[in-house]
Amino acid sequence: MFRVNEDYLKLPGSYLFSTIAKKVSAFSTENPDKKIIRLGIGDVTQPLCPAVIKALHSAVDEMADASTFKGYAPDLGYDFLRNTIAQEDYKSRGCDIAADEIFVSDGAKSDSGNIQEIFSKDTRIAVCDPVYPVYVDTNVMAGRTGTYDSTTGLWSNVIYMPCTAENGFSPEFPKEVPDLIYLCYPNNPTGASITKDELQKWVDYANKNGSVIVYDAAYEAYISEENVPHSIYECEGARTCAIEIRSFSKNAGFTGTRLGFTVIPKELEANGTKLNALWARRQGTKFNGAPYIIQRAGEAVYSEAGKAQTKEQVAYYMNNAKTIIEGLKAAGYSVSGGVNAPYVWLQTPNGMTSWEFFDHLLTNANIVGTPGSGFGPSGEGYFRLTAFGTYENTLKAIERIKNL
Amino acid sequence: MFRVNEDYLKLPGSYLFSTIAKKVSAFSTENPDKKIIRLGIGDVTQPLCPAVIKALHSAVDEMADASTFKGYAPDLGYDFLRNTIAQEDYKSRGCDIAADEIFVSDGAKSDSGNIQEIFSKDTRIAVCDPVYPVYVDTNVMAGRTGTYDSTTGLWSNVIYMPCTAENGFSPEFPKEVPDLIYLCYPNNPTGASITKDELQKWVDYANKNGSVIVYDAAYEAYISEENVPHSIYECEGARTCAIEIRSFSKNAGFTGTRLGFTVIPKELEANGTKLNALWARRQGTKFNGAPYIIQRAGEAVYSEAGKAQTKEQVAYYMNNAKTIIEGLKAAGYSVSGGVNAPYVWLQTPNGMTSWEFFDHLLTNANIVGTPGSGFGPSGEGYFRLTAFGTYENTLKAIERIKNL
Repeated sequence: MFRVNEDYLKLPGSYLFSTIAKKVSAFSTENPDKKIIRLGIGDVTQPLCPAVIKALHSAVDEMADASTFKGYAPDLGYDFLRNTIAQEDYKSRGCDIAADEIFVSDGAKSDSGNIQEIFSKDTRIAVCDPVYPVYVDTNVMAGRTGTYDSTTGLWSNVIYMPCTAENGFSPEFPKEVPDLIYLCYPNNPTGASITKDELQKWVDYANKNGSVIVYDAAYEAYISEENVPHSIYECEGARTCAIEIRSFSKNAGFTGTRLGFTVIPKELEANGTKLNALWARRQGTKFNGAPYIIQRAGEAVYSEAGKAQTKEQVAYYMNNAKTIIEGLKAAGYSVSGGVNAPYVWLQTPNGMTSWEFFDHLLTNANIVGTPGSGFGPSGEGYFRLTAFGTYENTLKAIERIKNL
Repeated sequence: MFRVNEDYLKLPGSYLFSTIAKKVSAFSTENPDKKIIRLGIGDVTQPLCPAVIKALHSAVDEMADASTFKGYAPDLGYDFLRNTIAQEDYKSRGCDIAADEIFVSDGAKSDSGNIQEIFSKDTRIAVCDPVYPVYVDTNVMAGRTGTYDSTTGLWSNVIYMPCTAENGFSPEFPKEVPDLIYLCYPNNPTGASITKDELQKWVDYANKNGSVIVYDAAYEAYISEENVPHSIYECEGARTCAIEIRSFSKNAGFTGTRLGFTVIPKELEANGTKLNALWARRQGTKFNGAPYIIQRAGEAVYSEAGKAQTKEQVAYYMNNAKTIIEGLKAAGYSVSGGVNAPYVWLQTPNGMTSWEFFDHLLTNANIVGTPGSGFGPSGEGYFRLTAFGTYENTLKAIERIKNL
């Protein structure tokens, strides 16, 4: 008789955003007249920019003609896209990354979930707390996290690095050395950023201790300050200790279009086995490439027009972030984030738990946000609002919060 | 110090089709004047049909306007597509499959590689030999297959079901009962098909023994004979033992467009845990949905125009299959397949090994096929040709083989 993967059964409840979606759907059904404003899940609202739309139409036309039709893509991405990424995201910033160190995928969520596969079963992971749930959940599914303590909300075999107001939402080096360290900067959910000097310390720590950093840079387009690095490869020595994951979702509105990539330098190896080769094997065996037309759309993001147009969209969202921060501050909230990131992190008022505040906001202001505790126990008492709404809705939401 | 997943290191050589691609590329570089005809990898050559192109353009236009823009898709697929599949692929054939038992994905390769994740670590798998490499390789990566014997080409902990000319390329029930049985019909690589009565016996076997059948039906559109089932759910009792995987790659030319789906009936469970729920959790955690524009393209395949146009393409390829079979027979080859499948399976002449014949065909006829031994030891002495070329190239290839 077959048996299921018991590690899956250890996962408490369902995926955070599914839970939120169900709550919102139930509220919406009971209150069909209420106009809900969604500042919860990190989904964008601005349409794809004209340069991307043009590239999509043009690629679709290619698929209509036998002489330009494209079948199976290279598993690891088309050269036209890998070369463009190498040039535009790395070489232009002085980072030494080659095209064959870039693996194009259907998005950063898949990559950040799948990357753990190439590491040994007994890999010890370290994560920030709060944290994007995918890092821990996928390690739970792989049986690496030990047992779950429902009182503390912690896994016995995960090294947590709390990020709270007390340490400026900036993790300290763990006492016990992890094999794999997940870092996300600009941070989801807290909106915190890291300076190049601070990130260099993490790179040095990883190289000294034989750890690998999985650096999730999905929000790098939102960096506005000079001393904040766009890539971990701006740091010296990162080629021997860091994997970087990037997304087209937030810089170019590809949340529903799906495109991302992972960078694995060829120096990154354990006992002579290169992680670059292992990941190539993983992707070659379990993935069949991102769609041609989507890869052409990704390429268009780097065109002169694409850069200008996506920059405008990012500025639009960052203006929302500013609106949220200023509005919340005026309403007496403690807030952080929102300067180099599209996320604003607020402390819940009156000692409410994160989920109490979620219900409060949904019921009384018809606003959907994300409870901080959904990202980990140190997120308790915090709440995430995103800048990805329309400006009009963002303004309205802030007015409603002020009137609570 | 971090360590890699040692199970990955057990994989011998690289993925079959990567090896072929490298060999062809080397030959091509050395012989730039030779016109190579590719009948190797199962990639299509006909462009996307007009109904699909129209749907793609229209969906791209939706993405250009804020009022119709689509962000994150539902992880498991848009209802419009799941409902259409339920109706067109299942209800219309008398199969009782509901929309929420259908999981839309970026393709059958991902699904057939990922499905093993929801089963326990000690799951015993059975595969046909020869077989599509992804089933075994992904179980190797998960540490389930024991040790590899490079002499026999077999894994110690995999149950093999040889399919050779002796048994009509039709597997016998394994002596030892497996937990998970991978079946692919119409078959890749042999092109063999199964009657409904024969498939019913497998369903009965699985139900009796508590096994799960992973039924890869990626080539169902090529079925031309009446008594050959299009879905395993045409068999009684399949809802308690079968998972079905489908693709848009071969019926509609989506190899470079990426769309597929997996069906998991809600009755399929072990100790009260539903595989449907586990897969939903897997996909919700590690996948972010197929692109909206691609899902609209998939929907268009089921429109009246889409059905007519894709049927024409399938007929075009099946005419190629007929051309290959008749040509090879005339040239004295033993061939099978090609009647309900786009693959023709031939015995190599003069006792050549599969790779010897590969080199022979590439060097002397400039034709790329796939060595049977690449699909498993029982494929040794066989060779796969696909019907997915153009008619002109298929004719030329057969002429070249005749003149060898």
